[in-house]
Amino acid sequence: MAEINKEKNFSEWYLNVILKADLIDYGPVRGTIIFKSYAYRIWEKLQAIVDEEIKKLGVKNLYFPIFIPESFLRKEKEHFEGFTPEVAVVTYAGGEELQEKLVVRPTSETIMYPYFAKWIKSYRDLPILINQWTNVIRWEKRPFPFIRNTEFLWQEGHTAHKDHKEALDFALKILSLYEKIYQEILCIYGFSGRKSESEKFAGALATYTYEILLPDGKALQGCTSHDLGQNFSKVFNVRFQDKDKKLKYVWQTSWGFTTRAIGAIVGVHGDNDGLILPSKIAPYEIVVVPIYDKKNEKEINKFIEKIKEEIKKDIFIDASEKTPGYKFNEWELKGVPLRIEIGSEEIQKQILTCFRRDKKERFKIKLDELKNKINDIFAEIDRNLFERSKNFTEKNTFEVRDYKEFKKIMETKRGFILAPWCEKEKCEEKIKEETKATTRCRPMKIENWKLKIGNSKCVYCKQKAKGYWLFAQSY
Amino acid sequence: MAEINKEKNFSEWYLNVILKADLIDYGPVRGTIIFKSYAYRIWEKLQAIVDEEIKKLGVKNLYFPIFIPESFLRKEKEHFEGFTPEVAVVTYAGGEELQEKLVVRPTSETIMYPYFAKWIKSYRDLPILINQWTNVIRWEKRPFPFIRNTEFLWQEGHTAHKDHKEALDFALKILSLYEKIYQEILCIYGFSGRKSESEKFAGALATYTYEILLPDGKALQGCTSHDLGQNFSKVFNVRFQDKDKKLKYVWQTSWGFTTRAIGAIVGVHGDNDGLILPSKIAPYEIVVVPIYDKKNEKEINKFIEKIKEEIKKDIFIDASEKTPGYKFNEWELKGVPLRIEIGSEEIQKQILTCFRRDKKERFKIKLDELKNKINDIFAEIDRNLFERSKNFTEKNTFEVRDYKEFKKIMETKRGFILAPWCEKEKCEEKIKEETKATTRCRPMKIENWKLKIGNSKCVYCKQKAKGYWLFAQSY
Repeated sequence: MAEINKEKNFSEWYLNVILKADLIDYGPVRGTIIFKSYAYRIWEKLQAIVDEEIKKLGVKNLYFPIFIPESFLRKEKEHFEGFTPEVAVVTYAGGEELQEKLVVRPTSETIMYPYFAKWIKSYRDLPILINQWTNVIRWEKRPFPFIRNTEFLWQEGHTAHKDHKEALDFALKILSLYEKIYQEILCIYGFSGRKSESEKFAGALATYTYEILLPDGKALQGCTSHDLGQNFSKVFNVRFQDKDKKLKYVWQTSWGFTTRAIGAIVGVHGDNDGLILPSKIAPYEIVVVPIYDKKNEKEINKFIEKIKEEIKKDIFIDASEKTPGYKFNEWELKGVPLRIEIGSEEIQKQILTCFRRDKKERFKIKLDELKNKINDIFAEIDRNLFERSKNFTEKNTFEVRDYKEFKKIMETKRGFILAPWCEKEKCEEKIKEETKATTRCRPMKIENWKLKIGNSKCVYCKQKAKGYWLFAQSY
Repeated sequence: MAEINKEKNFSEWYLNVILKADLIDYGPVRGTIIFKSYAYRIWEKLQAIVDEEIKKLGVKNLYFPIFIPESFLRKEKEHFEGFTPEVAVVTYAGGEELQEKLVVRPTSETIMYPYFAKWIKSYRDLPILINQWTNVIRWEKRPFPFIRNTEFLWQEGHTAHKDHKEALDFALKILSLYEKIYQEILCIYGFSGRKSESEKFAGALATYTYEILLPDGKALQGCTSHDLGQNFSKVFNVRFQDKDKKLKYVWQTSWGFTTRAIGAIVGVHGDNDGLILPSKIAPYEIVVVPIYDKKNEKEINKFIEKIKEEIKKDIFIDASEKTPGYKFNEWELKGVPLRIEIGSEEIQKQILTCFRRDKKERFKIKLDELKNKINDIFAEIDRNLFERSKNFTEKNTFEVRDYKEFKKIMETKRGFILAPWCEKEKCEEKIKEETKATTRCRPMKIENWKLKIGNSKCVYCKQKAKGYWLFAQSY
């Protein structure tokens, strides 16, 4: 890996590391990938965590068909226009030309909501809180593995509520959940906030997001939670009889978390030796490398069994015939958070030699201490990864009031820019045209920047600004 | 439900009960269904069990793209011919006509095996043991919910081995696993066996199956495990360098377990009051119905909390405003294995009134006994369901040597027929033409029929028979 440098050429490094670490292979159709077992295991662990959390909120899983009749997709005009350029279409099946074309789901609002209309009669049927874990298809112009796949995996949640407050609260509760997953599980810092009118989901009233800064100074949209208002309920006639006997349209949300998160993990944490995985989603939390000599094999294996019994973690024992040095490199490439090396010396002293992937540091620990300290060690690794991500993001987030400076930053080092904006689409367009930066979100809290909008002027037009917005070039 | 009788009109009963019990809704595209949350929860529980078992065998999950270039599907001739009439095809995407048509996966052999060819170099890379949980599309001529959906959910496992023995052993190990799942988890009796040449999977050397008898006397193929031999490895050039330095083609298997199993559960166990669910896959194992009067609400709720703490089961507390009688009917319809009714009398005596859905019997149990006995109660429920299924199947399985009798059975009561067959396709075809019965499998063990093939003659042509085969009209 030595020749490809993350700092110098991020995307080359990224494309190289996901192949070398055996996360993916390229599919035969442009923009598709094979999620190999090492990547899929990350996804399984992440799924289990997200699934448990959304179930705690009362959400139930179900499954809707992948094929959406084209006429369904057409019903919400903005939504249709937003997705039409990206859809894949089935035109024949069962040996026959189909009478109606079928869109392969890019998202499921338009197939789900006609059923909401059927299922919901009264306020007693609300809220509806559902979710599905599926594949979705969006024909990407510039595919990039995990980040923009033609086919990706996700969960899509959909809810219906009696009033706007309840719906908005729910959309924001999901945003908080996603933020928590990114910060506490994936150890990735970012900004939670609201999207601009031009950047929001096609058909939504408002879109909320978690925006991450990748090492090349470009932003990644980590997830989205949409306040759909009554846009879809009016189109699909989703109404309920309220306590006051009146028929009212429901208020809806939809929200998604995708395999793009794997790309974020790779990009944010990795280094020139390969992946660095946060402990909670690492396929193996620990790899044990036995250093056999001619006489110690039995003893070492007994010792390893003891470790496995004492520590209830996902442990891989690499007893293959490769050399220890080769194994060290391989498991560093694959980002296993903790390595334990066991040779004769370790057995004799009943001490373990450990290696932390994040800091690339060896340390020793007594076997009988490991059991009590292992959770602390992983917590410390995860904390360190999060701090690094936070520091990097803060270091590369610039408060800018002057447009020349804005342009210069985007031409040179890039990164996040916090700037006052009038919230008019024209300024947003001009900024994009001239700097390739788009609005990422209006952050909800800006911890380290004590920004008061006060009488600030829009960074572009110098008219009165409505708020501080996060700008960046984006993936 | 009273008017629709399972015994008199099975399919009408089935279609009625899956809607009433809220398992499905019909999708907008013919042959598709919405797996509603109650059905999806059954699938989730079943998935978790199957997933754990296959992982114990060393199988790893991954994910391949849903779109297969048509040229890939064409490579194995038999396979292509078998699946072509059933495929759905994407012809344009991203606003453009595609240069190559894309088949929406009906199964994934042809997209996976080119990668096997790439991934496998040496005997050290074997065996390959992988699996994916996905949706698949097969354009069914006569769709029937769960049993023959245009889109269904499944797991598909794929393995590659160094020799035929190892591959065949693996295919049979999976068949045993599926048999165990059907018998011990779903409480459904059936016959494990090998498919005939005309009924096997397109492209396989041999297909193994678990055949179930539904109440209308028709057979349901519960799952399949294929010994693919070297058919695909020769087409896709999947070779390895063996220890002897020679390049050899791998031996492969593939195997699948689908949402059809939900249809089997509904069909086999249900009665005229609705579903009856085996305990291990029931979304709720217990429903508690509080019988409130004016003064006991607090006390009852405290009592219920105590039950929830003591019994770690999936419990639903139905505290809605409906009458107890309404709730009883509703939860019987939904097949919850055990109901607990709690009113003032129960609290006073510290005794629970329970209702077993399978036997429709009430019984009393002391609160402090419930904790110790609950697992036995569920084991007894599941055992009873399995025994019923076994008795029904045995009662409707007929040993037949005379073709007139064969025809008469298929014209009247239907069911399984065990008959000697010469294994020539011509007899099989004639039997199908004349009786609608097909060979279901050559059973591997026939516990209660001491059948020795000896000098038996084929039930149709009276030439020497090769073995006893199971015949039935099938779904």
